[in-house]
Amino acid sequence: MKAEILSIGTELLLGTITDTNASWLAQRLADLGIDLFYVSQVGDNLGRLAESLRRAISRSDIVITTGGVGPTEDDLTREAISAVLGEQMAVQPEVEAQLRAFFERRGVRMPERNVKQATLIPSARALSNPIGTAPGWWTQPTQGEFAGKIVVTMPGVPHEMKRMWTEEVEPALGKLSGGGLIYSINAKVVGVGESTVEESLGDLIHSDNPTLATYAKQDGVHVRVTAKASTREQAERLTKEMVERVQAIFGSAIYGYNDDTLEQALVTLLISRKLTLATMESVTGGLVAHNLTNVPGASDCFLSGLVSYSPAMKVKAGVPQAVIDEYGVVSEQCALAMATVARAYTGAEIGISTTGVAGPSELEGQPVGTVWLGIDYQGERRAVKLYYRSTRPEIKRLAAMAAVNLARLALLKGLGRCY
Amino acid sequence: MKAEILSIGTELLLGTITDTNASWLAQRLADLGIDLFYVSQVGDNLGRLAESLRRAISRSDIVITTGGVGPTEDDLTREAISAVLGEQMAVQPEVEAQLRAFFERRGVRMPERNVKQATLIPSARALSNPIGTAPGWWTQPTQGEFAGKIVVTMPGVPHEMKRMWTEEVEPALGKLSGGGLIYSINAKVVGVGESTVEESLGDLIHSDNPTLATYAKQDGVHVRVTAKASTREQAERLTKEMVERVQAIFGSAIYGYNDDTLEQALVTLLISRKLTLATMESVTGGLVAHNLTNVPGASDCFLSGLVSYSPAMKVKAGVPQAVIDEYGVVSEQCALAMATVARAYTGAEIGISTTGVAGPSELEGQPVGTVWLGIDYQGERRAVKLYYRSTRPEIKRLAAMAAVNLARLALLKGLGRCY
Repeated sequence: MKAEILSIGTELLLGTITDTNASWLAQRLADLGIDLFYVSQVGDNLGRLAESLRRAISRSDIVITTGGVGPTEDDLTREAISAVLGEQMAVQPEVEAQLRAFFERRGVRMPERNVKQATLIPSARALSNPIGTAPGWWTQPTQGEFAGKIVVTMPGVPHEMKRMWTEEVEPALGKLSGGGLIYSINAKVVGVGESTVEESLGDLIHSDNPTLATYAKQDGVHVRVTAKASTREQAERLTKEMVERVQAIFGSAIYGYNDDTLEQALVTLLISRKLTLATMESVTGGLVAHNLTNVPGASDCFLSGLVSYSPAMKVKAGVPQAVIDEYGVVSEQCALAMATVARAYTGAEIGISTTGVAGPSELEGQPVGTVWLGIDYQGERRAVKLYYRSTRPEIKRLAAMAAVNLARLALLKGLGRCY
Repeated sequence: MKAEILSIGTELLLGTITDTNASWLAQRLADLGIDLFYVSQVGDNLGRLAESLRRAISRSDIVITTGGVGPTEDDLTREAISAVLGEQMAVQPEVEAQLRAFFERRGVRMPERNVKQATLIPSARALSNPIGTAPGWWTQPTQGEFAGKIVVTMPGVPHEMKRMWTEEVEPALGKLSGGGLIYSINAKVVGVGESTVEESLGDLIHSDNPTLATYAKQDGVHVRVTAKASTREQAERLTKEMVERVQAIFGSAIYGYNDDTLEQALVTLLISRKLTLATMESVTGGLVAHNLTNVPGASDCFLSGLVSYSPAMKVKAGVPQAVIDEYGVVSEQCALAMATVARAYTGAEIGISTTGVAGPSELEGQPVGTVWLGIDYQGERRAVKLYYRSTRPEIKRLAAMAAVNLARLALLKGLGRCY
């Protein structure tokens, strides 16, 4: 099956917004084993929209549109589909009733122009949208020039589109493409590069069902496992069996799945072991604390963070002046002392620290990108040296991730094997 | 003039990367007054690529392509253009020499397959790429079916593409579109909503040259001023005159221009006045410190940050227990006390603080989204209450921005008028 995406909206062509829907859908289509050959963006213009749609339906089996299904005169996706298929739009009483109920639940009267969102053509059925006003269309003409083709029409608002895709479109498409339903899990690996991940997966990467794909993302390398089967339960079982094999390969380098974050993994671990943590940051400038406090419930284990940017402030917080005089602030000794200060200041069981050179210029003769991380775990200590050949924000970002991972691995494997 | 963008690369159709080049170019085209009617993404397949390109050249005056100009067999943009125009590619000695020089500067030998990047067709001239290996093409056939049409071919790597566009393509296009050269400035407004910004601009928003456009972005509302003139100098002068009028309307609500950040504005102000600053954060969890330390040179004015997430840690740092007992941690009094602690701990002239409820649950009977900001400026104090109906990350983000802006406005206008 060949698919094509049409993203609709003049704001895309003015550069006001970036089309993130298309890349999200592209990944989902890849999971389904459906080939995506074209993605196009077109403005809110009936002529150009109909022209693009006609070409898409002619050359592809499935056309997926997002956007242009609002209540205003600019929203012309429904009109374009009707024009291309030569069918007449008509208000559907049951869709209208759902729409009015949506407004009622919010305690407002439905503006009359919204009734336009309750229309259908004979070849289309409505895709429900309980979290927005615009229902989608699943259009599949049974006769005429485009008999058997499918047009899936969804809203442009990302969270409405994603729900509609996952809940309504994907199951229907799964059934079509060989009676299959799919189930995916993203395993998230940290501390290992994408090529090493691929190499470690060995022959698994060539599996047919489930399929495996790797993606280098900001929060690590994702190993996406997707199985297809005749029932969702079977697909889920196949996926989970494969994820267990992936887990066996990477062990604790996998910090979580799907929407899990690295910080969440550490917070969960700390809370389950009734341990508390404190930070003392220099090179990361507060980013470790910020990332940890992004996790709801972080207050149960994260006691306090110190951001001591200058040597004087490090000494004021408790780092011995002698350490700085003898070894400098970008040193193993300073990282260790800072981790201990973080613990001492708060009484936490674990202290982690970061120090280094974020740039723009070198420091103490050490090049930009040099980072020392320290950990003090109930008095046992370890420091790790890292080097990132990158920009200031990237050095901060990577060092902050590494610091959190250091604490996570220390809890899982002990200080001797945490790096 | 009608333009069209073709983004080329199979990785776009697999959802591995999102096409941010297209929206960046869309905004630049809008500045130039060139209408953009279509954006398409197509994979690394010669047949489909040539088909898309032929259609684009047929219906548009300018076709802009990004991607597919690397040295490998997958990179087929040059081949597709040659095929559509029926012209023969040939290696150009002077382009090849530049390419070899690029590798030499990096101390490596050029792989022989890269010679493909030194080819041209008779209708094309090279667009130089001093920061990468792939030169662009400016193709403008003078005869045949597509005489007078323009195809601009650029690399897909965003920073290489942006440089090539700004330095090479934009001036050439400006000359074409009525002999005009353009010059744009983004004025960045904070603390005012987009509709208020538009309203305050009044009739200016309808200006013809320069044009004004507003964009609601993460770092505030951007007012983009773009003038067109026969010389760059003249365009620059027209733009700057208009920016002065915009500046007169918004005053200190404008924190900077183009790539300026809000934190940079504060750091610059602090350094110029030889003042130092310290933070004590609760609800923002380190984000204020992180944002400030993103600014190169922040260490000259940012002394130290405290992230005190629990009431006990606030008291440990110096907030009177009585304040917390009587007013709670989400209170004006606690915010003021925290700002004073930040100063006292470090000796900084300015202390800023954040406290509040980031969620998921309410705190001390106050709803999620309640935020108190405090400032202590050499002993004079002020607290401000804000409310954000939003998610945990957004509440943190908005509160951190507001805290930095509070300090900035306190320096510019005094504590009485800083909010």
